[in-house]
Amino acid sequence: MLTTENLNHAERLKSESLRALADTGGDRSERLIRSAAGIELDASKQRLDVAALDALIGAARDAGIEEKRDLLLSGGIVNGTENRPALHMAYRHGANIPGSPEAELVDRTQAQTRAFAEAVRSGAFQPSGKPITRVVNIGIGGSDLGPRLIADALADHVESGPELRFVASLDPSDLKHAVAGCDPEAVLFIIASKSFSTQETLMSGEAARDWLAGQIGADKAGDHFAAASAAPDKAKAFGIDPERVFDFPDWVGGRYSVWSAVGLSLEIGLGPEVFAAFRDGAQAMDRHFADAPLEQNLPILKGLIDVWNRVALNYPSRCVAAYSARLGKLADYFQQLEMESLGKSVTTSGQPGQTPGGALVWGGSGTEIQHSFFQWLHQGKDIVPVDFIGIGRHFASADPRERALAANMAAQGAALLDGRQVDPADEPILAAHKSMPGGRPSATLILDDLTPATLGALIALQEHKVFVESVMYGINPFDQWGVELGKVLTKGILDGEITEYDASTKQLLARTGLIGG
Amino acid sequence: MLTTENLNHAERLKSESLRALADTGGDRSERLIRSAAGIELDASKQRLDVAALDALIGAARDAGIEEKRDLLLSGGIVNGTENRPALHMAYRHGANIPGSPEAELVDRTQAQTRAFAEAVRSGAFQPSGKPITRVVNIGIGGSDLGPRLIADALADHVESGPELRFVASLDPSDLKHAVAGCDPEAVLFIIASKSFSTQETLMSGEAARDWLAGQIGADKAGDHFAAASAAPDKAKAFGIDPERVFDFPDWVGGRYSVWSAVGLSLEIGLGPEVFAAFRDGAQAMDRHFADAPLEQNLPILKGLIDVWNRVALNYPSRCVAAYSARLGKLADYFQQLEMESLGKSVTTSGQPGQTPGGALVWGGSGTEIQHSFFQWLHQGKDIVPVDFIGIGRHFASADPRERALAANMAAQGAALLDGRQVDPADEPILAAHKSMPGGRPSATLILDDLTPATLGALIALQEHKVFVESVMYGINPFDQWGVELGKVLTKGILDGEITEYDASTKQLLARTGLIGG
Repeated sequence: MLTTENLNHAERLKSESLRALADTGGDRSERLIRSAAGIELDASKQRLDVAALDALIGAARDAGIEEKRDLLLSGGIVNGTENRPALHMAYRHGANIPGSPEAELVDRTQAQTRAFAEAVRSGAFQPSGKPITRVVNIGIGGSDLGPRLIADALADHVESGPELRFVASLDPSDLKHAVAGCDPEAVLFIIASKSFSTQETLMSGEAARDWLAGQIGADKAGDHFAAASAAPDKAKAFGIDPERVFDFPDWVGGRYSVWSAVGLSLEIGLGPEVFAAFRDGAQAMDRHFADAPLEQNLPILKGLIDVWNRVALNYPSRCVAAYSARLGKLADYFQQLEMESLGKSVTTSGQPGQTPGGALVWGGSGTEIQHSFFQWLHQGKDIVPVDFIGIGRHFASADPRERALAANMAAQGAALLDGRQVDPADEPILAAHKSMPGGRPSATLILDDLTPATLGALIALQEHKVFVESVMYGINPFDQWGVELGKVLTKGILDGEITEYDASTKQLLARTGLIGG
Repeated sequence: MLTTENLNHAERLKSESLRALADTGGDRSERLIRSAAGIELDASKQRLDVAALDALIGAARDAGIEEKRDLLLSGGIVNGTENRPALHMAYRHGANIPGSPEAELVDRTQAQTRAFAEAVRSGAFQPSGKPITRVVNIGIGGSDLGPRLIADALADHVESGPELRFVASLDPSDLKHAVAGCDPEAVLFIIASKSFSTQETLMSGEAARDWLAGQIGADKAGDHFAAASAAPDKAKAFGIDPERVFDFPDWVGGRYSVWSAVGLSLEIGLGPEVFAAFRDGAQAMDRHFADAPLEQNLPILKGLIDVWNRVALNYPSRCVAAYSARLGKLADYFQQLEMESLGKSVTTSGQPGQTPGGALVWGGSGTEIQHSFFQWLHQGKDIVPVDFIGIGRHFASADPRERALAANMAAQGAALLDGRQVDPADEPILAAHKSMPGGRPSATLILDDLTPATLGALIALQEHKVFVESVMYGINPFDQWGVELGKVLTKGILDGEITEYDASTKQLLARTGLIGG
């Protein structure tokens, strides 16, 4: 956790002008602007100076950040409550998995998904005598957000291949629209579920199979299904041909699973080369995280800054603003990665209430959000640090729209920082309405360009900075016990066993007719 | 604002068990569960009892809520800083606009958009000898989120008509994907901009025209454009045929403009009948807001509950969780409506810092979000009240997926309310990790079914509850001065005039090559 020294720096800096800090330049700029793996982190608009930053890095060193990072990357047990490592990085390093006993599994399954992806793309896979023209990924949470984000983000890197659609909701309307207009003889459904027992995914998978059976016959429907799962036997029991069940080990967490067989839809839709470049970009960030000194290490710096804002400056949330039409789902992806990992009040040693856990993460894509909630960021009472995500190529682009996009991003950071005091002499009535306090910190992450590699590096950066935060908070970022109770209660409702439930819920169920009153 | 009496009730209730409150039943349930216009509000899981609710209603009455509501609905000047009414409701009432001097305008423009929508849908409008098969709405903020939300929400009510696409981003990739695969002779672009000077919209509109000119010739391209604007002269100057420039008055705020000509894309895509039913549903909520006693009035109750959570219980944010695949953008829409309206620290009389303004609003669609950030809601340190939005028909549906969707929603409310204490005797190691504090309030809004009418009523309910909050906070919900500075700074950057800017921003612009260092 943070020390008294850290908190004293925060007290000192709270009363300083953020504009004055940003104007400091020199050593402060060099320390707070760092690059790696095609990404620049510019934290020079944070409420930090060199002394405070040094103290933060000292706290991280005291918390054992280096040893814990090395334990993570070497396949040690970092998920204590489930007694396993968190080695999704293995998928970014091929056979060179540092210390993993399951290198063979990763190698084998990567070869399998690649071969299947190529067969689908080339038209060699023709379950009903036609090449596949649409792939529908059925999954939820980690089995949905990753593929969905990356398919969108890299859409401009696709030259050909089947169209990708995604079904996550239990709402039948979701599946209905995902198959609308498709040729039933040319569709492939991928059921992505780590446990292969996720209620939503199985119900939608069954509905998809029923729909396809109605279109092309029950005997043929199963040929149009594949699965990605850490429970391959259950996938086979569902009726999926073992040749198309692609497995991964249980030490790949759901929210980290896009690197594994859960990325199958992407490997098909984007092509294995693009998917490999995406993994390689993440590998570059892994190597930087492993090797760079703490002072130059992007995941370390970003993780510490987010802890600083959460704990030392007491900002309860952070806004992610991605300035790219292709990164419309980035905020949602980061939200899951961070809030499911850090949304805990219990330390690794089981002490309740001893940690603040991570902040609320929310956001959207710019400049659209400037026209929706930025009013609140600029003139609302609450201070929310913003992470701007931009594309370096845009700044000097020949297309004026790209330059304007980049200029908007820079302008928002400046406006949050500096604010504006309108003189009542100039605006007798509206001065207070047009004034803005400023003093609101932001960070900027700039990808050289939006490529498979920089996207992979960005996601790996975020994964590792979440780990850094978890070390500072003293919590396990790889479990998620808090989602269990809802599942139990849902089952109780569907089974009609609700005697212990509160009267409000019972009344709701009786009124709506789900359970008789 | 809230009174000492209100705050005393909050102090008293903070120490009570939320489960015990929810189990009270009787009069409390009757007071906190109310219906109107096809929507049920169930607030029985809020940290409120009858005495506290009565005190809240008393505070609203003392704040002049009835008089201010009547002023709003009768077209009085409720937007003081811009000296105008906020009469978007006029579009929901046809010629029967209470007190408006511009009934004729509303009637005329509604007839015009309807006639044009019918001409496009019937194929009578053929600018290049073909019926229109794709409509691309180019707009941002209020000119984008409303059409986008409602097109998605009512997609199952569309039998036929052109495909709708939306362009909001300056990123050229957005336009590129919106026109991908379309027949250039069968496309209609609608430029939606209240001011017709929005940078993003004009740049994208020009790019669209350039693209189309390249496809079908510059002399023909203009025939494929229409506009919705409160500055019709500027739209005409852009080169759009006056017959296809659909105007609306400046007293329709951008974030309320979907009811006006900005809804043109919807009127074409959904059909005028569906769009009329959507307006009628809102009208029903308007009438309820105007006529129902405060104690039974949904916008009043919901607005006061949100003030209660923000001010009396000090919760800095509220989560919107819509349990419908078709309402995936509802949280974004509510976020804009609320945060742009209430994100202010200055009162209507120009007193800075005298009001908390509205809370942060964020969310997504369930059950998907149960697999992303609900871990944080259940076990994180922060308490965030949740608004569940559900579909009544789902609860007793013949489709097990719909019942499961409804059961999940009910279960989450119960889990947040009650939590779970795991006994270390049963789980020696994991008890703390599996325990959840509970005591977290939620509200449920249930639409009888997802229809044009209930969707219209839901949006009107949200609009009015934002107004109720604004009265309690003493702020003007209809202006947005906080977005001006960013526009000024963006222009400065693009013009190269940044001498007054902070050093961090100047360095960024120099490094990236947007402005020489």
